[in-house]
Amino acid sequence: MTEAMPRQRKKILLVSAHPEPRSLNAALTTFAVERLRAAGHEVRVSDLYAMKWKAAVDADDFPDHVADERLDVLATQERATLAGRLSSDVAAEQEKVRWSDAVILQFPMWWFAMPAILKGWIDRVFSNGFAYGPAVPPPYSEGALGGRRALVSVTIGARESAFSERGVHGRLADVLHPVQHGLFWFTGMAPLEPFALYGAVGLPEQRFAVAKRAYGRRLDGLFTDEPVAFRSLIGDYDHDMRLLPGAEAPGASGLDLHVR
Amino acid sequence: MTEAMPRQRKKILLVSAHPEPRSLNAALTTFAVERLRAAGHEVRVSDLYAMKWKAAVDADDFPDHVADERLDVLATQERATLAGRLSSDVAAEQEKVRWSDAVILQFPMWWFAMPAILKGWIDRVFSNGFAYGPAVPPPYSEGALGGRRALVSVTIGARESAFSERGVHGRLADVLHPVQHGLFWFTGMAPLEPFALYGAVGLPEQRFAVAKRAYGRRLDGLFTDEPVAFRSLIGDYDHDMRLLPGAEAPGASGLDLHVR
Repeated sequence: MTEAMPRQRKKILLVSAHPEPRSLNAALTTFAVERLRAAGHEVRVSDLYAMKWKAAVDADDFPDHVADERLDVLATQERATLAGRLSSDVAAEQEKVRWSDAVILQFPMWWFAMPAILKGWIDRVFSNGFAYGPAVPPPYSEGALGGRRALVSVTIGARESAFSERGVHGRLADVLHPVQHGLFWFTGMAPLEPFALYGAVGLPEQRFAVAKRAYGRRLDGLFTDEPVAFRSLIGDYDHDMRLLPGAEAPGASGLDLHVR
Repeated sequence: MTEAMPRQRKKILLVSAHPEPRSLNAALTTFAVERLRAAGHEVRVSDLYAMKWKAAVDADDFPDHVADERLDVLATQERATLAGRLSSDVAAEQEKVRWSDAVILQFPMWWFAMPAILKGWIDRVFSNGFAYGPAVPPPYSEGALGGRRALVSVTIGARESAFSERGVHGRLADVLHPVQHGLFWFTGMAPLEPFALYGAVGLPEQRFAVAKRAYGRRLDGLFTDEPVAFRSLIGDYDHDMRLLPGAEAPGASGLDLHVR
């Protein structure tokens, strides 16, 4: 009887990126924290604006970097990561990711992508040696962060039809491919279908109530919903990292090639 | 006789996003400036790291914003833009975009997207009232910035096959869709095919020389090469912003639906 099964206490990192504490994004963050805690989970929140998160990768990320030396970002990141010599703000976020069983990114879609401050969280925290690179398991399968689940919760000004199969902005799955496949799946995290709140500008209270119910169901399924079935690099692709001939699902094309 | 035609002097804004002045990206920026000036054009450079560009949209962008007021980013941006009351760093960049006949974005691909500092240039400079919104011409056709050309020049660590038609990372055109279609074409700019330098980590001098020749040809064609033929919102889409039935090119699917 599933009702009698003991709940599994999990650890969730929620990363939120909106400058206004009374925004819709902040409200969704608060809602998620309460919902997940009520289900018995542990939740930590990185509220990037409240933290005054530094967005740009630069030499200050690497305390050992010699001032006049050429900054090779990849090599310097790897050296600093493996030596445990990253700036303390980055190290603290890596510790949260390592601690987590799931990561949720909460953001408004700006220019068909995440806000700069959140991109800067990724650029700096998902460093060479931590999230990818020769020192960790290979991408697109086990990955450096394998065993974790990942969910995008995004607010979007446009209506849903504009992000539908034939919508002018492109399918939401395609627009978010750099995050779903390029960030989450690359690092071995299991990405769930994104939760999108469309028509988010001046959202009436009644529609927000409906949205919260829908988001609540997604949060309840964080560890049980089926993730997007992206393909494994090992087995499905050749040595040039191209999908093997005939491996695609019948009729699949575009970015759907990479879904089983 | 084309040889005898007087050259047209054009204005180009080059936006560059790498923390290291001796990087490959910096070298490509320098090369582009010299090539375009040698062709008789005017060039201005926004070197975002050198400018210490603030990446995150926040209340400081709006000098008239009252400290305790709820920050509605969209509405506040529009009001400040139309009143000419944006922070001076944003206003200066808008003036450069307005001045330009073409915009070039030079950046390393980090996590299948642009670095945070460049995303923050877009989030802050391409404001409501300047790049989109009810006060300017409609998107995906004339647009707020119509009449300009736009080029991405990107360095990529991976090899080209991984971004090819069946490559594991997705086609480069799909990965850059949020920029090519969502930023450039949305605002009415005519996007050229991106210039990509693959295998950019530890690039041997000889391969850099080859890359410069290829990039030089792209710069020479900045105002004559055929742009990507994205569809116009007016005529090709219905009122729900979905591509009209049967409008697609034969066999087109995925994001290619939006190319004529």
